[in-house]
Amino acid sequence: MGNNYGTLFKISTFGESHGPAIGVIIDGCPAGLTIDEAFIQSELDRRKPGQSKITTQRKEDDSFKILSGVFEGQSTGTPIAIVIENQDQRSKDYSHIENTFRPSHADFTYQEKYGIRDHRGGGRSSARETAARVAAGAIAKLLLRKHGVEINAYVSQVGTLKAPGYTQLDLRKTEDNIVRCPDPATAEKMIALIDQVRLDRDTIGGVVSCVIKNTPVGLGEPVFDKLHAELGKAILSINAVKGFEYGSGFAGVELRGSQHNDEFVNEGGKIRTKTNHSGGVQGGISNGEDIYFNVAFKPVATIMQDQATVDKEGNEAVVSGKGRHDPCVVPRAVPIVEAMAALVLADFLLRNKASKV
Amino acid sequence: MGNNYGTLFKISTFGESHGPAIGVIIDGCPAGLTIDEAFIQSELDRRKPGQSKITTQRKEDDSFKILSGVFEGQSTGTPIAIVIENQDQRSKDYSHIENTFRPSHADFTYQEKYGIRDHRGGGRSSARETAARVAAGAIAKLLLRKHGVEINAYVSQVGTLKAPGYTQLDLRKTEDNIVRCPDPATAEKMIALIDQVRLDRDTIGGVVSCVIKNTPVGLGEPVFDKLHAELGKAILSINAVKGFEYGSGFAGVELRGSQHNDEFVNEGGKIRTKTNHSGGVQGGISNGEDIYFNVAFKPVATIMQDQATVDKEGNEAVVSGKGRHDPCVVPRAVPIVEAMAALVLADFLLRNKASKV
Amino acid sequence: MGNNYGTLFKISTFGESHGPAIGVIIDGCPAGLTIDEAFIQSELDRRKPGQSKITTQRKEDDSFKILSGVFEGQSTGTPIAIVIENQDQRSKDYSHIENTFRPSHADFTYQEKYGIRDHRGGGRSSARETAARVAAGAIAKLLLRKHGVEINAYVSQVGTLKAPGYTQLDLRKTEDNIVRCPDPATAEKMIALIDQVRLDRDTIGGVVSCVIKNTPVGLGEPVFDKLHAELGKAILSINAVKGFEYGSGFAGVELRGSQHNDEFVNEGGKIRTKTNHSGGVQGGISNGEDIYFNVAFKPVATIMQDQATVDKEGNEAVVSGKGRHDPCVVPRAVPIVEAMAALVLADFLLRNKASKV
Amino acid sequence: MGNNYGTLFKISTFGESHGPAIGVIIDGCPAGLTIDEAFIQSELDRRKPGQSKITTQRKEDDSFKILSGVFEGQSTGTPIAIVIENQDQRSKDYSHIENTFRPSHADFTYQEKYGIRDHRGGGRSSARETAARVAAGAIAKLLLRKHGVEINAYVSQVGTLKAPGYTQLDLRKTEDNIVRCPDPATAEKMIALIDQVRLDRDTIGGVVSCVIKNTPVGLGEPVFDKLHAELGKAILSINAVKGFEYGSGFAGVELRGSQHNDEFVNEGGKIRTKTNHSGGVQGGISNGEDIYFNVAFKPVATIMQDQATVDKEGNEAVVSGKGRHDPCVVPRAVPIVEAMAALVLADFLLRNKASKV
Repeated sequence: MGNNYGTLFKISTFGESHGPAIGVIIDGCPAGLTIDEAFIQSELDRRKPGQSKITTQRKEDDSFKILSGVFEGQSTGTPIAIVIENQDQRSKDYSHIENTFRPSHADFTYQEKYGIRDHRGGGRSSARETAARVAAGAIAKLLLRKHGVEINAYVSQVGTLKAPGYTQLDLRKTEDNIVRCPDPATAEKMIALIDQVRLDRDTIGGVVSCVIKNTPVGLGEPVFDKLHAELGKAILSINAVKGFEYGSGFAGVELRGSQHNDEFVNEGGKIRTKTNHSGGVQGGISNGEDIYFNVAFKPVATIMQDQATVDKEGNEAVVSGKGRHDPCVVPRAVPIVEAMAALVLADFLLRNKASKV
Repeated sequence: MGNNYGTLFKISTFGESHGPAIGVIIDGCPAGLTIDEAFIQSELDRRKPGQSKITTQRKEDDSFKILSGVFEGQSTGTPIAIVIENQDQRSKDYSHIENTFRPSHADFTYQEKYGIRDHRGGGRSSARETAARVAAGAIAKLLLRKHGVEINAYVSQVGTLKAPGYTQLDLRKTEDNIVRCPDPATAEKMIALIDQVRLDRDTIGGVVSCVIKNTPVGLGEPVFDKLHAELGKAILSINAVKGFEYGSGFAGVELRGSQHNDEFVNEGGKIRTKTNHSGGVQGGISNGEDIYFNVAFKPVATIMQDQATVDKEGNEAVVSGKGRHDPCVVPRAVPIVEAMAALVLADFLLRNKASKV
Repeated sequence: MGNNYGTLFKISTFGESHGPAIGVIIDGCPAGLTIDEAFIQSELDRRKPGQSKITTQRKEDDSFKILSGVFEGQSTGTPIAIVIENQDQRSKDYSHIENTFRPSHADFTYQEKYGIRDHRGGGRSSARETAARVAAGAIAKLLLRKHGVEINAYVSQVGTLKAPGYTQLDLRKTEDNIVRCPDPATAEKMIALIDQVRLDRDTIGGVVSCVIKNTPVGLGEPVFDKLHAELGKAILSINAVKGFEYGSGFAGVELRGSQHNDEFVNEGGKIRTKTNHSGGVQGGISNGEDIYFNVAFKPVATIMQDQATVDKEGNEAVVSGKGRHDPCVVPRAVPIVEAMAALVLADFLLRNKASKV
Repeated sequence: MGNNYGTLFKISTFGESHGPAIGVIIDGCPAGLTIDEAFIQSELDRRKPGQSKITTQRKEDDSFKILSGVFEGQSTGTPIAIVIENQDQRSKDYSHIENTFRPSHADFTYQEKYGIRDHRGGGRSSARETAARVAAGAIAKLLLRKHGVEINAYVSQVGTLKAPGYTQLDLRKTEDNIVRCPDPATAEKMIALIDQVRLDRDTIGGVVSCVIKNTPVGLGEPVFDKLHAELGKAILSINAVKGFEYGSGFAGVELRGSQHNDEFVNEGGKIRTKTNHSGGVQGGISNGEDIYFNVAFKPVATIMQDQATVDKEGNEAVVSGKGRHDPCVVPRAVPIVEAMAALVLADFLLRNKASKV
């Protein structure tokens, strides 16, 4: 259990890093949606390994196959199953960790919880699993587009290098560089930093920010399934995420109410807020303003250096990364964050249909 | 919908701020648990209004009544229903907002989502709802205690005033002062600051930190229901929360993998980690180390000052707080954070029973 | 767990036969529904004990109190909590079964499953629990009425006495007699039979039939949540039910396809079926024709006669009914069957809103 | 939605009759279970088409592939994905129903609900979908076997031909003949009848009965998720099912309580019941006695005869079966009934682990 997400737009994912395939079933996609396969592939391409010099060199096409739920290019209301085959597994790269726990990986906890684990490439705990999220998220995006919703994530921080706030950025530039930071000057520095970290056989953390525009008013279900609470869960479930804040976030705690409150104004007949410390969500429900949030990613746990650890029996051991790994996860995390946000919003869009008689 | 939480230890809450009562049904509490009613009341007392000069002066005993599920002092495995009557409603304090939207409250979004709202005291969006969570959380704590789990939250920041890290604090001192900061010197300053803010007819934000000790290894369900992801959702669903980070959190993004990784060591036959940047969770599963996290609370939206806004028809209007409100929410949020953490852990404790054949 | 029902129109019930109260939270009732309290009471009155000479003589007003979710007579989209106090408990009538298992009751299974049980009046396993279902079902009916859906159950069999098929009955006559059989001649015989059974200090079984008219086409979610499968579950969860069949049911197995198939016809521009062996459901989805089904109720387990049994320790024992009990459950089961059917349809009505883009 | 089943042992299925593949994800299978692939295949073989002269002649090997969740022959606690490719689609056999509604099929309701349908072979509404259930059910059976539970279904009725009650049968003989009736004499007559029906270009209904032995005491979750209620739902969700009864069933309504009640006896230290009208379930919880139930299947809707109907536009039309179809569904339904029963019990087995502290 735990491999399902969503109430009405519901996904179930499966697959290990070095098994035959990974994939997802989407149950609850409304009928009549045009399924643009080229778009799904383009989203997978944004996440796939080997896309640039600052990502892992594992080669996976991440080409997918739809097994059901689409007829003559349209969703039919039945489950959409998507399968992505694994191609470039090098399982022998992992034989050294069959009995040894890599620091800050899930090897120890899976072993303890299940009494057995597929150690090859981290098995189910590998971030390879997120490809299934991106495929499902692409379909959620297609649904959201029909309602005008736009989701744009980007890299806002690598190590201590930070981009300006999103209102000062042109988010159309995110894909212009390999680090996916829409501020060209900062992007250049980030790339250089990641490259240096890679040469140091080390890794580094970063922040992905996300902005959602044109969300209809009314999405989110109080009191436990608040819009930002579900976003938080969905985002925190992505590998390596350590924190989530939306709107004013942690910085907001230093403000006074008189500074923080968003006054309402009538803007040409539409009720808007003058400021947006609320981050587009009030009382757990979207208010139509931009939803924006930040996501903290820790440095990747696999480093190309010797580290002390123990094996299953508790004997001291040394491990060093041997597979192909990302020196910094955030460039490839951008489409994953967008995908999870899309899944949350698509689900709330459907749930909200039942809010009034 | 949205008023349920949990998979096996499942709660459903109800109630508005100015209705006759609020309450909760707990479905899935295992049979045979001794239900310590005095303990439940003591938890409710930590949250209740009017407890000190730095909280709202609304007077509610928050005395509760168990209607089912307990027989001769023990849980029977059937739903435990708890009801808390509202006593000190002053609904007329709210007649001015019947048609006007308070800035940064949920008035506008509820109105738009549902087309109708109980405006009195914020109705369902009031933090009064959290009393039901605290009552349920108390029972979750009783269950967790049998497994040795201890949950301790405290105020770590008010405005810009910060307490030292938790490893430098004696968490048994949290209840020694009215702001619930276990560092006496910082507590004193925090109290003075909140008092000043109150006199300024304003409000201020803060941070609650939480430390969970003795969690069994293996709690949490990958990949979507990771332990920290569910904690995040549960915590973010509390009123006024803007951010959640665990372990190294947002600060961790600046570190390198070689600094951040937690090496495993054999400590007298038990596998432990030398450091704990992971915050007690690896791959979404508890590893037995301390779980710790920070929660950002925005300044309370109700301020005793005039603010510009609009009414339902979009006409310009002015509102000012008239009810009785907290100048800073964090002292009373401490037991709420603990309660939500307890509900998450109790649920995972039960779910984990099915992890192996 | 197990005390919740529904996906979007979701209920959680609580309460024991001899505890202070029973009740229900309805989460997911759309906002803007007029809550007709007199109607809810009238539904509860149809189920309440002591209503006629052929029912138990326990006296319960079953008057209810709405604690939340309704504002100025309308649902607000927040949880509707309803509480019904228990009044006429005579718990001492049950002291003889504290340690003894009544035949064909749930005493033994509860004891084994939970290790503890509230023996008074059967505790949670008592049919008193169904009052909460009827209250919630009344609200579901109010929602369904807005869509024209009508649900009519009636007693079609007691012992071997059977009423004619529903198409030969005037269902408006169901409430004209105390056994709730719309065929006056059969009703009279049924009443006489139940009265005789009562004098014999025995009980007898029966069948409740239910007809649902004007269901919109398209309700039901293949493949597991087929309309008739959810109806089956909901109905089978009622105390004492042993069987469920819809449409042609068990009799249909003897037919050939050429006899059983329902041909489609165009009836004034509307696609209808000529016959209705399908019972209004095809492929798990309503087709707009009458939905009809039969429900088998076993004879009530409590009889006023000595029966051999064992106690907790396995010693031989004798028990005899001492409380006040129904000689035949079906007259009071009629509103319960309707309530469960209403809960199923209300839920599917909301779920169906998300079937198309 | 609607394509998931289970709370802890949870399955999600996908696939259309004439798409590339069908399949299932099992989420929640405990780790450490030996996955016997030969057994899974043998179960699929019992369901597969073309297995005898009295079934459809469509040829499908129904060979399956496990894509995840199994490592070195054992379940790992992660999702088990199983895919079965479709091989012998003859979609052109179905072009005549692209715009025409077959009587008593789901063509009309799918078209109305979704506004689009994959008409080839009935698409998602085809019983081909049940192969995924059988594959998942085989794994549930492997789990149940570890607890001694045995599930045996068989054909007890075809048309008006009935086998004796199960206590008079040797259930090990079920697989000895192609109709799967363990009474050889009745089996022979059933086969002759089905053969005649086939020659008549018609179809006929039947009953599958199921007996579950050695169920642990305590499975089932009152009050809505009663063991028999979940069994009912799971079974009713199988294509062509019209009724479900357990224990005394519909026949029990004619009995008196004094006849129907199952007295408890101490059988060598174990508490048993003398009779078993309860069908192994009391108050929704298993009591350790045999669970037994009957399932009514209607005659297959596809007949090789002309039938009047209408097309999408409501014009009169005539359809006749052209594909390859079963004259009677019950022989192949036997493993499906067992699979669904196994899924229900496996889920309750896991849920019951949380019943006591």
